[in-house]
Amino acid sequence: MDMHQLTRELNVRNENKVVMLVADGLGGLPMDSQGQTELETAKTPHLDALVSRGTCGLSIPVKPGISPGSGPGHLGLFGYDPLQYLIGRGALEATGIGFHLGPNDVAIRCNFCTLDGEGKITDRRAGRIATEQSAPLAVRLREVSLPGIEVFVEPVKEHRFVVVLRGDGLGGDVADTDPQTTGVPLLDPIPQNDASRRTAEVAAEFARQGAALLKDQSAANAFSMRGFSESPSLPSFDEVYGLRAAAIAVYPMYKGLAKLVGMDVVGDAKTLNQQMEILKTHWDKYDFFFIHFKYTDSTGEDGDFPGKVKRIEEFDSALPQVMALDPTVIIVTGDHSTPSLLKAHSWHPVPTLIASAECRPDRCTSFGEADCISGGLGHFEAKYLMPLALAHAGRMGKYGA
Amino acid sequence: MDMHQLTRELNVRNENKVVMLVADGLGGLPMDSQGQTELETAKTPHLDALVSRGTCGLSIPVKPGISPGSGPGHLGLFGYDPLQYLIGRGALEATGIGFHLGPNDVAIRCNFCTLDGEGKITDRRAGRIATEQSAPLAVRLREVSLPGIEVFVEPVKEHRFVVVLRGDGLGGDVADTDPQTTGVPLLDPIPQNDASRRTAEVAAEFARQGAALLKDQSAANAFSMRGFSESPSLPSFDEVYGLRAAAIAVYPMYKGLAKLVGMDVVGDAKTLNQQMEILKTHWDKYDFFFIHFKYTDSTGEDGDFPGKVKRIEEFDSALPQVMALDPTVIIVTGDHSTPSLLKAHSWHPVPTLIASAECRPDRCTSFGEADCISGGLGHFEAKYLMPLALAHAGRMGKYGA
Repeated sequence: MDMHQLTRELNVRNENKVVMLVADGLGGLPMDSQGQTELETAKTPHLDALVSRGTCGLSIPVKPGISPGSGPGHLGLFGYDPLQYLIGRGALEATGIGFHLGPNDVAIRCNFCTLDGEGKITDRRAGRIATEQSAPLAVRLREVSLPGIEVFVEPVKEHRFVVVLRGDGLGGDVADTDPQTTGVPLLDPIPQNDASRRTAEVAAEFARQGAALLKDQSAANAFSMRGFSESPSLPSFDEVYGLRAAAIAVYPMYKGLAKLVGMDVVGDAKTLNQQMEILKTHWDKYDFFFIHFKYTDSTGEDGDFPGKVKRIEEFDSALPQVMALDPTVIIVTGDHSTPSLLKAHSWHPVPTLIASAECRPDRCTSFGEADCISGGLGHFEAKYLMPLALAHAGRMGKYGA
Repeated sequence: MDMHQLTRELNVRNENKVVMLVADGLGGLPMDSQGQTELETAKTPHLDALVSRGTCGLSIPVKPGISPGSGPGHLGLFGYDPLQYLIGRGALEATGIGFHLGPNDVAIRCNFCTLDGEGKITDRRAGRIATEQSAPLAVRLREVSLPGIEVFVEPVKEHRFVVVLRGDGLGGDVADTDPQTTGVPLLDPIPQNDASRRTAEVAAEFARQGAALLKDQSAANAFSMRGFSESPSLPSFDEVYGLRAAAIAVYPMYKGLAKLVGMDVVGDAKTLNQQMEILKTHWDKYDFFFIHFKYTDSTGEDGDFPGKVKRIEEFDSALPQVMALDPTVIIVTGDHSTPSLLKAHSWHPVPTLIASAECRPDRCTSFGEADCISGGLGHFEAKYLMPLALAHAGRMGKYGA
């Protein structure tokens, strides 16, 4: 039995609201073995006050030792087992630029590349061509015409763009055309199962017409196609939890991930303060709010320890605006750790807190990695956070008599 | 591989005895965020002494966030995955009144109701008819005669009674006849699969004859049938653990649950002291004793914080009588939490301790929720308690060479 069978079966509707604040890449590491992490270094009076009346713990994004990308990291927080629900690379790339995939779509990550006179690859990334040069080329590819198929071509950054094929009978299982080396031609798109036969034919025709459109371009005269994937079919928050859910995010990737689980993306905030304003404005219309804060991750990725500390303090300072709305349950967590020391996503469990009138107090008094080790939530897989949120909101009935 | 494959395969028989003391609904909450729980408030010198030489932890009855009923709560403690083994509502109701279900039985929860002259329901619970009035009506239904089927009709309380149909080829998957509303007739029992076709026919005939027997009764002239269920087929304690197991309980529900896993229900105790006497009397005949104490749950359900504290102290005071028998392993736990604050079963993990000569000491010194957070057993799913018990009793060999 998966947890969504339980959350569906035990669903109780009420007026209680849940706010989930996600500081991306929140968890960290000290810069030396005697030091403190970014979160422990930051002055976080509002988080600490919440810790004193809440319950803390460490959330394991996927499984011990696994460093997740943004996709699996957020699926876990949303209660979708990240080992069961997979978002294909093409689908994630499309989601990341805010493209809303439908059920008849196959998304493909494409790289501009250069071929020599014999059609052999000379540069797999077209010299990391500048976005100003590559975007018009991607737009030109919109001229491709495929009978019975709607084609979307969206520039991304540098040599990258996304193609979405929309039509009936398009499976997502087609091999990459990138041979992963130079001096050889591009590969044909080979279907990996019968359901993807038509996709492969259509992709081959797209590649043929596309190559013709680019043949005189010196910066990039071809492209590889990778990560073919269908839209991940995720049950919605409303269906599995009975929650009207809103996402308040700044970056397209997180808006896209929220859309995949049926959240409404509300507002168009550029700053955390604007996110708080949008929260206030939409307070009455939703049961659940996902608020995403990016900069704890990006500073970590930059190896900018003091920068991450500052961003955590900024995040902390927004908390009173959430508290003023008096949510029944407030959750603070991250989708993974991004220690400045490592300049990358990591597997380290993520400091997490739940505060509600029904939470059991522990002895934690400040929000930090070492404190959370002995929190009342223990060490738990992120996918259990949503069932815990529902329980604390009185939104799940008893299992069995 | 499920745990029972392991416990069977690794089984070692010896003379070591295990006592599992279950204080129903043991876990609690403080009445305000700065306070202490019922267990932390109670004076429990004997439990605290046991904690000092044992290992503590927090048991998660089912999964994080899930509040279990008595059925799944006890199945977990007995080591039967409560998401794999389901006890149907009819089977649980029969179990709750001490009816021992066999493999050819289908149990049905019935409600007396009233119909008007046109056969439409006027009251789905017959005005919550008093037990003194309803019990004789249930007994009268024993006159129903069904060819090839043995029929049992057992009064429960107020408008409720249980029917058990015993015979060959009776599946348990039949829809309820209660339309969940008034002003309409009762529904027919509709089979949900081929295996339940005969059950539905037999149930329809039971309903027909039953209605004829009740037709002149003004208090209740009909009944609905709900929660059709077969006996849950649970492997026995002897088969999966190699344990001769005895249950010492006061209430029929817990005796029934113990019987479902093949325990002998011994004695007929009304008090905890009588339970201790029965433990002593049967000490030599069994390897495992399940001792159930109800009142920590019922006081919690009543929202009676001081009452629950007192009951915990009563439970503590019985401990020396167990210790005097010198069991190899002693376990103290609950099947779930029942915080007085919530007046209901909850999802909060349950303080649990194991004491034996082979347990690894932790730094816990008193038995309470906050202490158990950092106990040596960590936070674990209740279904692992039995493997831990067997290990501490030297009753499981090495897995693999």
